[in-house]
Amino acid sequence: MFLSFEGIDGSGKSTQARRLAEVLRARGQNCVLTREPGGSPGAEEIRRLLVEGGGERWSPETELLLFNAARRDHLERTIRPALARGDWVISDRFADSSRVYQGLVRAENRRLVEELHRLVIGIEPDRSFVIDIDPAVSLARGRSRGGSEDRYESLGLDFQQRLRAGFLALAQEFPDRIRVIDGSGDADTVAARIMAAL
Amino acid sequence: MFLSFEGIDGSGKSTQARRLAEVLRARGQNCVLTREPGGSPGAEEIRRLLVEGGGERWSPETELLLFNAARRDHLERTIRPALARGDWVISDRFADSSRVYQGLVRAENRRLVEELHRLVIGIEPDRSFVIDIDPAVSLARGRSRGGSEDRYESLGLDFQQRLRAGFLALAQEFPDRIRVIDGSGDADTVAARIMAAL
Ligand SMILES: Nc1ncnc2c1ncn2[C@@H]1O[C@H](COP(=O)(O)OP(=O)(O)OP(=O)(O)O)[C@@H](O)[C@H]1O
Ligand SMILES: Nc1ncnc2c1ncn2[C@@H]1O[C@H](COP(=O)(O)OP(=O)(O)OP(=O)(O)O)[C@@H](O)[C@H]1O
Ligand SMILES: [Mg+2]
Ligand SMILES: [Mg+2]
Repeated sequence: MFLSFEGIDGSGKSTQARRLAEVLRARGQNCVLTREPGGSPGAEEIRRLLVEGGGERWSPETELLLFNAARRDHLERTIRPALARGDWVISDRFADSSRVYQGLVRAENRRLVEELHRLVIGIEPDRSFVIDIDPAVSLARGRSRGGSEDRYESLGLDFQQRLRAGFLALAQEFPDRIRVIDGSGDADTVAARIMAAL
Repeated sequence: MFLSFEGIDGSGKSTQARRLAEVLRARGQNCVLTREPGGSPGAEEIRRLLVEGGGERWSPETELLLFNAARRDHLERTIRPALARGDWVISDRFADSSRVYQGLVRAENRRLVEELHRLVIGIEPDRSFVIDIDPAVSLARGRSRGGSEDRYESLGLDFQQRLRAGFLALAQEFPDRIRVIDGSGDADTVAARIMAAL
């Protein structure tokens, strides 16, 4: 099984991906916990090009090509070998993040995202969980951990609202694959919703 | 005008690109001399990922995505602005190198090269010069400069023969754009052939 966690910044993806991996391992299931961009040595190097430097460093199209290069490496070197061994793979973000973020930046880029995906990636997770949360709530959580508000302040609460709507629209486009998980409540509550959906 | 120089390793691309730029500048034509992979600050950083490390570092598909990311940046930040100013652009390699090198590595990748090119690059040079030379001749030249034989020894003379055939086949595919230039003789002789073809 190949699973991914998606959602806006601070929605709880990393927390829930880690917890699910722990539950599966406790049940004796080998499980690779990975993330994007990154997840393999080469992809982590490409990640550095993506996350360092200012927002104007790459155009949306160049950025999308770099994301696909990283994803292809991640797929070849980490995801496919793990699935071939019979391990489960849990990825903290995958292609849906490209669909939503790039689609927001420029609506006509959504077609480019799909064409590149079809050409060089081709695979979808068996199941993707979109953790849905009001950006004001995750912002407040971020405040309580400190530090992560920069992301909201630089991108803006309005941008997070649009991302949220983008993830919900995507769930309607891929109803067989994507499950929307209510991300409110504490981490145990959210984890229980994910186990129920799985 | 947007011109590119193509051909096997050591065929004389950099020498002739530089000479042509000098001739054009002497005639008062502003001219940007650039190269691939690279040619813009971002693309030069991607170039480092491509040229450093062993041959197994990236799969052909990941490598092709990185080439296209670099080419897109080069196009946006260097080539298009120069053409918009009315400058000539002379690029030491461009997309034909991807077509030939990637096509050799895996024949079915040639289709992928074309689809990516159409999706994210779209532009062709107005004129491309393939400098055609017997690999044994350019190998001997390399010996006289020293150092560059590694490339031949690591890839093999047979591989260079196949690259040569690949460039010649490409010239037949794009007869309006590509001019094959006999690369034998000294640099002045080759430069005169290029000026005649231009
Ligand atoms: N259900 C929850 N209730 C309260 N706090 C939570 C909950 N889930 C996660 N958190 C906290 O909220 C913050 C963001 O969670 P997490 O890092 O898992 O989100 P994320 O979606 O991975 O964020 P990013 O997009 O920045 O990677 C963390 O401080 C985390 O401990
Ligand atoms: N017509 C020529 N006659 C003799 N030597 C030449 C000629 N043209 C170039 N050279 C020499 O041959 C070597 C390779 O030339 P050059 O670097 O221009 O080739 P290149 O196609 O750019 O190679 P690479 O693919 O390695 O970048 C250099 O040492 C150059 O000085
Ligand atoms: Mg996270
Ligand atoms: Mg050269």
